[in-house]
Amino acid sequence: MFAIKRLQQFNNKVDVQLPTAEDLQQATLSLTNALVEKPSVTPNDAGCLTMIENRLRKINMLNERFDSAPVTNLFSSYGNNKPLLVLVGHVDVVPPGDLSNWHTDPFVPVEKDGYLYGRGSVDMKSSVAAMVVALEEFEKLKLHKNIDIGLVLTSDEEGEATQGVKYLVEQLQLKGKRAQWALVGEPSSEETLGDSIKVGRRGSLTGRVILKGRQGHVGYPAQIINPVKSASKLLAKFESKQWDLPSRFFPATSFQTVKFICDSGAENISPASLEFIFNLRYSPKQTLEKLRGYIEKKIQKTGLEYEIEWKVDAEPFLTHRSPIRKCVEQVIEQELAISPKLSTAGGTSDGRFFAKTGTHVVELGLCNKTIHQANERVPVADLGKLAALYLNILIQMNQANA
Amino acid sequence: MFAIKRLQQFNNKVDVQLPTAEDLQQATLSLTNALVEKPSVTPNDAGCLTMIENRLRKINMLNERFDSAPVTNLFSSYGNNKPLLVLVGHVDVVPPGDLSNWHTDPFVPVEKDGYLYGRGSVDMKSSVAAMVVALEEFEKLKLHKNIDIGLVLTSDEEGEATQGVKYLVEQLQLKGKRAQWALVGEPSSEETLGDSIKVGRRGSLTGRVILKGRQGHVGYPAQIINPVKSASKLLAKFESKQWDLPSRFFPATSFQTVKFICDSGAENISPASLEFIFNLRYSPKQTLEKLRGYIEKKIQKTGLEYEIEWKVDAEPFLTHRSPIRKCVEQVIEQELAISPKLSTAGGTSDGRFFAKTGTHVVELGLCNKTIHQANERVPVADLGKLAALYLNILIQMNQANA
Ligand SMILES: [Zn+2]
Ligand SMILES: [Zn+2]
Repeated sequence: MFAIKRLQQFNNKVDVQLPTAEDLQQATLSLTNALVEKPSVTPNDAGCLTMIENRLRKINMLNERFDSAPVTNLFSSYGNNKPLLVLVGHVDVVPPGDLSNWHTDPFVPVEKDGYLYGRGSVDMKSSVAAMVVALEEFEKLKLHKNIDIGLVLTSDEEGEATQGVKYLVEQLQLKGKRAQWALVGEPSSEETLGDSIKVGRRGSLTGRVILKGRQGHVGYPAQIINPVKSASKLLAKFESKQWDLPSRFFPATSFQTVKFICDSGAENISPASLEFIFNLRYSPKQTLEKLRGYIEKKIQKTGLEYEIEWKVDAEPFLTHRSPIRKCVEQVIEQELAISPKLSTAGGTSDGRFFAKTGTHVVELGLCNKTIHQANERVPVADLGKLAALYLNILIQMNQANA
Repeated sequence: MFAIKRLQQFNNKVDVQLPTAEDLQQATLSLTNALVEKPSVTPNDAGCLTMIENRLRKINMLNERFDSAPVTNLFSSYGNNKPLLVLVGHVDVVPPGDLSNWHTDPFVPVEKDGYLYGRGSVDMKSSVAAMVVALEEFEKLKLHKNIDIGLVLTSDEEGEATQGVKYLVEQLQLKGKRAQWALVGEPSSEETLGDSIKVGRRGSLTGRVILKGRQGHVGYPAQIINPVKSASKLLAKFESKQWDLPSRFFPATSFQTVKFICDSGAENISPASLEFIFNLRYSPKQTLEKLRGYIEKKIQKTGLEYEIEWKVDAEPFLTHRSPIRKCVEQVIEQELAISPKLSTAGGTSDGRFFAKTGTHVVELGLCNKTIHQANERVPVADLGKLAALYLNILIQMNQANA
């Protein structure tokens, strides 16, 4: 009952009627169930966005769709001249995978032993439900609006993510709209709700290399230039290299080979060429130029003919000294009596697209232990707590800008 | 006209009627044409063996078939109690490949600009024809037979080679028959006929390794065990290692990776496992135990779960101080006025199966420049010369054992 206690404390200060913890819990669970029932595997929102639009219309939010078929994107907001705080989420889910690993139907929400089971129950339909409920409850408070507030939802976060939030942010920019702060609902917690928030992300850089040698019969090694000889040396070097040291917020840059293909087709013939793909997760100590330059120089040094293609998946960002970071930390301390770890670990998130336009991005969501797995599940009690956290953040960000 | 001159010199000593160079040339060309016309792609002899059996029957050779479907094998011989000299060849050819690269039909022998074109014209239907003609001419000399002589032919040298000469040698062994000397007709020459003979072969050892790591999201490198990290270090070491130094007859042992496959299927997921296949061509300085032991120890040291499969394609052999080696060298010097290089380079050959039973093996054949390629071709003039070489070797081996 932390939520209700703290909310009531806050109530004393602003003199408004706050929802009970029970109200928040029921409303969030009910909407989560409705969302989990929709099999919204990327990039199909399966009706989730329309359902949410209908609810937010009732609290007078303006729904703007920025669809880019087959991806659907919603920007629902009010206000148009104050600093903008956006809540950011996705309604798409990864495919359930092998159904025989599930104990329940992934698209039927089932409560059992204090958990809610279902694909997207953690990542991140319950976060989305908590955001919608928080917006509804915030509206009921009838506070003076010191900031603009928006909800950003996409049906393509788990996929290519090129037509989702990236596209929406670009469209908002064309309209001259930029968010000051973004609260992303991705599952940031590790063991218990609120124990970790994301205050940044590493960059992600993917490279694809083709290395060409001279094919030959293994019986005539002097005539062979085996590209595996060069590639194995390169990868041994890159995989073991200390690219940099960890810093306060960022782990060290890391290199992983994700694919390596060469096959001469015969056991007595050396391969003519090979292909490998690698990914670098890099800290802000690096720059794209530095990483690409170093790697290309080493490849050049092999003396072999090569091709290289680069893909910048995400550039690194850090939200350190920002009111949104302080506010999220403080609300967690008040509501849950724990101090969240400030993390930048994990994969990329849609936060990167906001960060690129200068938005201060913080991520707070449920425990990520079961995401993308069979029997994905969330402690039912966390649903209302998360809605309470989001509601408190809305109230405090609004009051702080009075 | 070398052939005829030297043959006549020899004639003076043994007083027999030797064929003219022209006779040898015509007979060999004619039989080569008949063989090239038969599209005997491995393992189908396409009637080649029956045609040869019919000719050898006329000179009272005993034809024994050791077929192992779909492979056909012929042992044609006379004598049964003296040291046995076998001529060894194959009638199968590698597929012609892309026909658009051929200027002529690969299975229609065509003479042009002094060359005979056709699949198998070098490897090794003209060698087989030269052997048959040499056997026929040798028979005509009516010499006292001091040695037993046999011809061994298979339809599977270019393929798996498990049911070809290997099988035939095993069957002969079961009958208590072992060759003292083997003259293999594989294309051993490099620039001109007779400039190089094979007096041994390296061993060939193939290994297939599966290395298992722990798959994970590249965003969480601490949880990943990427098997590429270990494999790249291993292969960099093996590919660069000086396994031994070259010796008088053998180049240094060499290591080639021929296949390397790993693919997590996604750019943000590390591979769970990988597979690589390598081949070692090794000199008699190595032993199978030493090579396998060293490599397995290094793989074990990675600490990863692994599987390894070994395949011994061939063990090394060397025919140094043997009458057959001296005889072949001497005949080349007499007939062609050049001294052949004694080589052990190149791939494996059916000679290894004889070597394994203690047979002294020497290989002498045409220039190998165009083998297995489009527009495979042999200088027409080399056909009669090769038959003359084989005939002289038969005569001299026979006389040396008087
Ligand atoms: Zn997510
Ligand atoms: Zn051959």
